[in-house]
Amino acid sequence: MPGSACTKDIQKNINCSTSAALPTCPPAATFTELQPLMAHPDPPSEHDKSQEDTKEKDPVQSAGPTALQKARARFLKGVSYFAGDMPVFAKWMEKQFILLQLLDWVLRGAAQVMFVNNPLSGLIIFAGLILQNYWWALNGFVGTLFATISALILQQNRGAIAAGLYGYNGILVGLLMAVFSNAGDWYWWLLLPNIFMSMMCPIVSSALASINSRWDLPVFTLPFNILVCLHMVATGHYNHHFPQVLIQPRSELPNITWAEIDVAKLFMSVPVGIGQVYGCDNPWTGGIFIISLFISSPITCAHAVLGSAVGMVSGLALAAPFGDIYFGLWGYNCVLACIAIGGMFYALTWQVHLLAITCAFFCAYLGSAIANIMSRFGLPACTWPFCLSALTFLLLTTGTNRIFKLPLAKVTYPEKNLGFFWKMKKQEKKEKAEKERKEQEEQQKAIEEEVILNEKEQLRLELERMEEGRGATEASESKNDETPGVEQQDTGEEVEIRQNDLTEVTPADYV
Amino acid sequence: MPGSACTKDIQKNINCSTSAALPTCPPAATFTELQPLMAHPDPPSEHDKSQEDTKEKDPVQSAGPTALQKARARFLKGVSYFAGDMPVFAKWMEKQFILLQLLDWVLRGAAQVMFVNNPLSGLIIFAGLILQNYWWALNGFVGTLFATISALILQQNRGAIAAGLYGYNGILVGLLMAVFSNAGDWYWWLLLPNIFMSMMCPIVSSALASINSRWDLPVFTLPFNILVCLHMVATGHYNHHFPQVLIQPRSELPNITWAEIDVAKLFMSVPVGIGQVYGCDNPWTGGIFIISLFISSPITCAHAVLGSAVGMVSGLALAAPFGDIYFGLWGYNCVLACIAIGGMFYALTWQVHLLAITCAFFCAYLGSAIANIMSRFGLPACTWPFCLSALTFLLLTTGTNRIFKLPLAKVTYPEKNLGFFWKMKKQEKKEKAEKERKEQEEQQKAIEEEVILNEKEQLRLELERMEEGRGATEASESKNDETPGVEQQDTGEEVEIRQNDLTEVTPADYV
Amino acid sequence: MPGSACTKDIQKNINCSTSAALPTCPPAATFTELQPLMAHPDPPSEHDKSQEDTKEKDPVQSAGPTALQKARARFLKGVSYFAGDMPVFAKWMEKQFILLQLLDWVLRGAAQVMFVNNPLSGLIIFAGLILQNYWWALNGFVGTLFATISALILQQNRGAIAAGLYGYNGILVGLLMAVFSNAGDWYWWLLLPNIFMSMMCPIVSSALASINSRWDLPVFTLPFNILVCLHMVATGHYNHHFPQVLIQPRSELPNITWAEIDVAKLFMSVPVGIGQVYGCDNPWTGGIFIISLFISSPITCAHAVLGSAVGMVSGLALAAPFGDIYFGLWGYNCVLACIAIGGMFYALTWQVHLLAITCAFFCAYLGSAIANIMSRFGLPACTWPFCLSALTFLLLTTGTNRIFKLPLAKVTYPEKNLGFFWKMKKQEKKEKAEKERKEQEEQQKAIEEEVILNEKEQLRLELERMEEGRGATEASESKNDETPGVEQQDTGEEVEIRQNDLTEVTPADYV
Repeated sequence: MPGSACTKDIQKNINCSTSAALPTCPPAATFTELQPLMAHPDPPSEHDKSQEDTKEKDPVQSAGPTALQKARARFLKGVSYFAGDMPVFAKWMEKQFILLQLLDWVLRGAAQVMFVNNPLSGLIIFAGLILQNYWWALNGFVGTLFATISALILQQNRGAIAAGLYGYNGILVGLLMAVFSNAGDWYWWLLLPNIFMSMMCPIVSSALASINSRWDLPVFTLPFNILVCLHMVATGHYNHHFPQVLIQPRSELPNITWAEIDVAKLFMSVPVGIGQVYGCDNPWTGGIFIISLFISSPITCAHAVLGSAVGMVSGLALAAPFGDIYFGLWGYNCVLACIAIGGMFYALTWQVHLLAITCAFFCAYLGSAIANIMSRFGLPACTWPFCLSALTFLLLTTGTNRIFKLPLAKVTYPEKNLGFFWKMKKQEKKEKAEKERKEQEEQQKAIEEEVILNEKEQLRLELERMEEGRGATEASESKNDETPGVEQQDTGEEVEIRQNDLTEVTPADYV
Repeated sequence: MPGSACTKDIQKNINCSTSAALPTCPPAATFTELQPLMAHPDPPSEHDKSQEDTKEKDPVQSAGPTALQKARARFLKGVSYFAGDMPVFAKWMEKQFILLQLLDWVLRGAAQVMFVNNPLSGLIIFAGLILQNYWWALNGFVGTLFATISALILQQNRGAIAAGLYGYNGILVGLLMAVFSNAGDWYWWLLLPNIFMSMMCPIVSSALASINSRWDLPVFTLPFNILVCLHMVATGHYNHHFPQVLIQPRSELPNITWAEIDVAKLFMSVPVGIGQVYGCDNPWTGGIFIISLFISSPITCAHAVLGSAVGMVSGLALAAPFGDIYFGLWGYNCVLACIAIGGMFYALTWQVHLLAITCAFFCAYLGSAIANIMSRFGLPACTWPFCLSALTFLLLTTGTNRIFKLPLAKVTYPEKNLGFFWKMKKQEKKEKAEKERKEQEEQQKAIEEEVILNEKEQLRLELERMEEGRGATEASESKNDETPGVEQQDTGEEVEIRQNDLTEVTPADYV
Repeated sequence: MPGSACTKDIQKNINCSTSAALPTCPPAATFTELQPLMAHPDPPSEHDKSQEDTKEKDPVQSAGPTALQKARARFLKGVSYFAGDMPVFAKWMEKQFILLQLLDWVLRGAAQVMFVNNPLSGLIIFAGLILQNYWWALNGFVGTLFATISALILQQNRGAIAAGLYGYNGILVGLLMAVFSNAGDWYWWLLLPNIFMSMMCPIVSSALASINSRWDLPVFTLPFNILVCLHMVATGHYNHHFPQVLIQPRSELPNITWAEIDVAKLFMSVPVGIGQVYGCDNPWTGGIFIISLFISSPITCAHAVLGSAVGMVSGLALAAPFGDIYFGLWGYNCVLACIAIGGMFYALTWQVHLLAITCAFFCAYLGSAIANIMSRFGLPACTWPFCLSALTFLLLTTGTNRIFKLPLAKVTYPEKNLGFFWKMKKQEKKEKAEKERKEQEEQQKAIEEEVILNEKEQLRLELERMEEGRGATEASESKNDETPGVEQQDTGEEVEIRQNDLTEVTPADYV
């Protein structure tokens, strides 16, 4: 077996050589999470699942790796430090000053809007926001910060805070309140409702989680949707302190002629759609966001682009004004829905991939509907369409085991989720095989026992026959002994023992 | 007793003769569901409960049935083949070609809108739809078909699919999208969103069922409501591809003078209200629907008519424009609500009947409210009022056992539900009687045992006295014997009994 | 200890003297709830928790109370008859004529709007309503009465009915339907929908309770909100039978200049805000309501005033028209939210107090938002903002034990809730101490046992040495004995013991 497994595909080969290149590190230690950071020679990367697989198959791979393999191994090792959810960095952070930790949480919170638990992605996203608008970026930062602080005050789960799960609603609240404010940039009073609403985020999150956890569902960006809509409709366009931009229902649609389509803008609408998740219409900002996604998880990145494209197509199908499509308004909900279903909360299989695309189409439809309804109240659609469509598709129950919803506690990022799913499948297969093996063994044993029993029976019969023979000879000596005598003797002994047993129970009955 | 029970009422008499007319069929076999179809001489009909009752009371009814009775028996036997949920036909279908099965499921789906699980009713309903409008009927058929196919693809519960539970939202989606389309009949592009929305039905149904099942509630037509409203509001009146009819809120109501009432039209509004369940305003179509209901379940039919009448009265009470009432807009929700509460999900008693009427009134009120709200968004009320009012009344908990909500898994059709309820009641009564009997027996036994014990005690005392007498005489002979001697004897006796008891258990231990 | 505890604070001192002034009443009897009314010398008052505390610390306080103390004791005893939830009166009521009981339930229902279970408060509230408007008061009474009767018909929980929990939605439905009717006072036809909607209250309450009970949440005034909105939107402003007042969305806000503020009116808005809970704009009525709250529970009263003030401040912060603020529209939801969170459903601590204020601010924000949305449908905000904000804050889960949500079944009134909380805390502390004590004891025992064991060991060793000595002398006699002999002996002893142990188990194995 050794040696053959490694030639199967390059990926595994690399991993083999990775472990081979570190002969001082015993394989078991690689996955110990309690080791101090600096003594950790091979952190669990996003490829640890395949590593693990390989090791099981081939723990003593000692063939010398080529130079290319070595380079790749080093590259992948490097990748593992900043890709996925950066567990090495998170572990190192735990021992740092609280303010530095808070920064980590804020950055992770910024990235968690796209389900990415990665401070580097968060940093890049903030860079994209600054590229778009300083004032918006500041409001987003304030929102994330105060949402995280509020969660700390309310003593929410520390692990969830550290993963940025209390920050992502805050950044959206902060950003979108700035985006939809009609008072212009650098209207400092806006920070007051911004801070208040951000600090309400953990409360609303916790409340919604109490409800959604009954169905093992996440809260998504529902707190953001609720709080931003609440702020906007509570104040409105004509408010003197916090005026909002005027959003009005469309009573008539412009004529659409296909000749007018600007194909370049249409293609540009894909990154713009991703940028609109954070309310940004700059295609460069959208592009930066795509990079930040790719760093953490290529699957997430692919589904984000796919979702944005699906949204664009849906817009064309439903005769939406081209301006809306170019502006990315048809894309951002589909982006989020496609990421959520395609590998994040379901383990990615072909069936789930198709489900994610269906969900994106449904989400685009829903987006149009909700935008029309919300506009009657002067409200934008926010990410309500994403939340509702993703929740609907997560509530789906099917008879197939190819659509596997991960337990909420096990959700990390698509690649790791997939690893979890495969491991579980393998475990199941192993258990099944084990069961079958045991059953076979038992059958074998049963057969053997039967054979032994038969032999014993034969022996007993022979013995009886012999005793009978002896009994017959003894019968001539004394007439009291009869064949059942053997049994009588047995019974007598039995009864004696039983009487001893009963002495414990009976005394109360004697008087 | 025999003979007298049968004269109680005609219904039972008929059933008696039914079983008498089939002397070759043992009563027990009547309820076996695993028998092959053609060998099934007496399928469980909608009257099987009363049959059962009668049989228990009068199993040897051998008086010769009159010719009239025989004719009636034959008639009822015939009825049992196409009434209720047609279990005989369903069983026969299971062995047919898949396309034929699919047709059965589609027809059952068409009828399930009215809670009727019967392909014949479905066929009649399709006839009614064709009478109304060919294009609508086609759209309805396409909707049902694709909803059922989608459920098959998503591997939903096969039993539920076969009962048409994944089709009824599809037919409504297809029909109503055609009804509310402003593009005119035979606009073939409409089939595209129609198919998409129909195929979304099982997803939304499954998601809602995940939520509602926590309270053991059905999803009713909520998926239809959600999806049709979604399509209509996503496109709207001014859409270039899929324009919807213009629905606007009423800002002023016309003056109402009672003299203007057209009584004929008012009466006609009852069947029209039933037709409006499927969006049809043709009174003949409504009449056909009534027939299709009567075939499957007379109780359902009665409550449908009652509900429509209640809706009409409510419309008059709340000063609705006569046009709306004539058009059946006040009726269709009440029809569904009245059917759902009156015998379908509750076992029909007088209290439940009153509750159903209350629910119909509440539903009419709610219907007016929801229609006013939805019209602001250019939407019709759909069957939201029915869903919300019926769910509210099903969530009701009361202290009385006369309002019995059936477990969702046991819901079939009112007559069978009633049978289940009566059976359960009888079972409870029997158990109670059994319990009381046992208690009495135990009391009796306890008394007898006491008597025996007393007698034993007396005997023992006598024995003691005798032994004492003997003891006294023996005492002169040997000084070792004392009174506890009796106890020693007792103990011996005790042990002997014990030994007898143990003989049952011990043989396995002997070798 | 005795004597010192009492000087700690006056409150406790009073309670000490209360119990001292009633030497004929054993302390244990004070809390017996099964005693007949007239023989009940010291009913559990709102101060029973402190009494209890004091008693535990100082059960034999026998120093003669001063005249002042005696007077105070008498005063507090008097207070206890009509404060809190008046359990003495409730017990006495149980034996009265059913109509009198019904009156008690109606009065309690009227007060339950403010979470007060006290018929005297209810009576005062009705007085306040009569001061405001006879017709409204009549409608409120009719609503409460029919809601209670409907709950009786539907056989709802008798305890809940007696606590007025089925009446408070009824009074609000009756009152607000009269308030928002555009048909003028004494339009007798209004009583028809009033009675219908009031009788629907228990049904909707029961249905909502089925849902909310899953999260141990109360239904608050949701049934009232649903039913009044339903009635208003079903009829509307232009209805011929039941016209509603015209409520329209504000498209422009008047200019606000701070100089125009009328400080007197602003202060007046606090009691007016409390009055608006029942739809009353008369400040005297609001003042009467404050008194009725103070009678039952000072904590409730304080939070009501605080909530109203918070609402007023929020209105100013969000640039609301002064007219709305003066009219109390910003106050009433905050009043209810602040009461609910501040001591009613959470045990009152400083953290909870701050949470209640936060909730009031959130509720004011939400109130503005909901009022804007509802006005599009011609609807008032009712108490939706209170319900939604309070439910959100009750769903909150935190890691701190200073925010303790009472189980719904244990909720009474803030003072008693606090008593329950303290008792629980004390119980926990006691259990902890007990546990620690036991652990210490066990440790002590373990040490002692070790000492004994050591002594035994020493004895054994000595014995061995002695035996060895003997063995040595014996060794000269026989050469077979060697040093391991000690161990052999040990083993032999061991085996003997084992054999005794095994006698219970082994007989079956011996043959």
